[in-house]
Amino acid sequence: MDTVTAPGLIAGSLTTLSFAPQVVRAWRTRSTADLSFAMLVVFLAGVLLWIAYGMVKEDVAILAVNIVTAVLIGLILSLKTRNG
Amino acid sequence: MDTVTAPGLIAGSLTTLSFAPQVVRAWRTRSTADLSFAMLVVFLAGVLLWIAYGMVKEDVAILAVNIVTAVLIGLILSLKTRNG
Repeated sequence: MDTVTAPGLIAGSLTTLSFAPQVVRAWRTRSTADLSFAMLVVFLAGVLLWIAYGMVKEDVAILAVNIVTAVLIGLILSLKTRNG
Repeated sequence: MDTVTAPGLIAGSLTTLSFAPQVVRAWRTRSTADLSFAMLVVFLAGVLLWIAYGMVKEDVAILAVNIVTAVLIGLILSLKTRNG
């Protein structure tokens, strides 16, 4: 834990795990019309950049939270693409 | 720029600005049923923790991106509360 200390890790876990209920909701309802496509795409781009940053900095915490976030946003985006 | 360098700042800007199109969409359509309330609340909690972290670390970059994010998520949350 060099660049991210415990409070940062808790904050990062919250912002990452927050997308889990959105995945569940989108999966159950198959309704994603109210989700902004631009939000999902730009957010995913930012998260992928965080992953690249984590790789260069060799920071496992940044890598871990952002890989999980990328998977969750990817799931929401694929549901959005399918259901509109 | 001690803990967050340029690539991190770009990544942070993307993940922050991504919520702007969601605010615009929710404002225009007044339809937020597909947005997970739990996602918004947990995400906001994480962002507020990031702000506290930025204050303790006296990190202007972390503070800036997270204050803007908190405002945008707050707007979406208030529209969600009003429109269901």
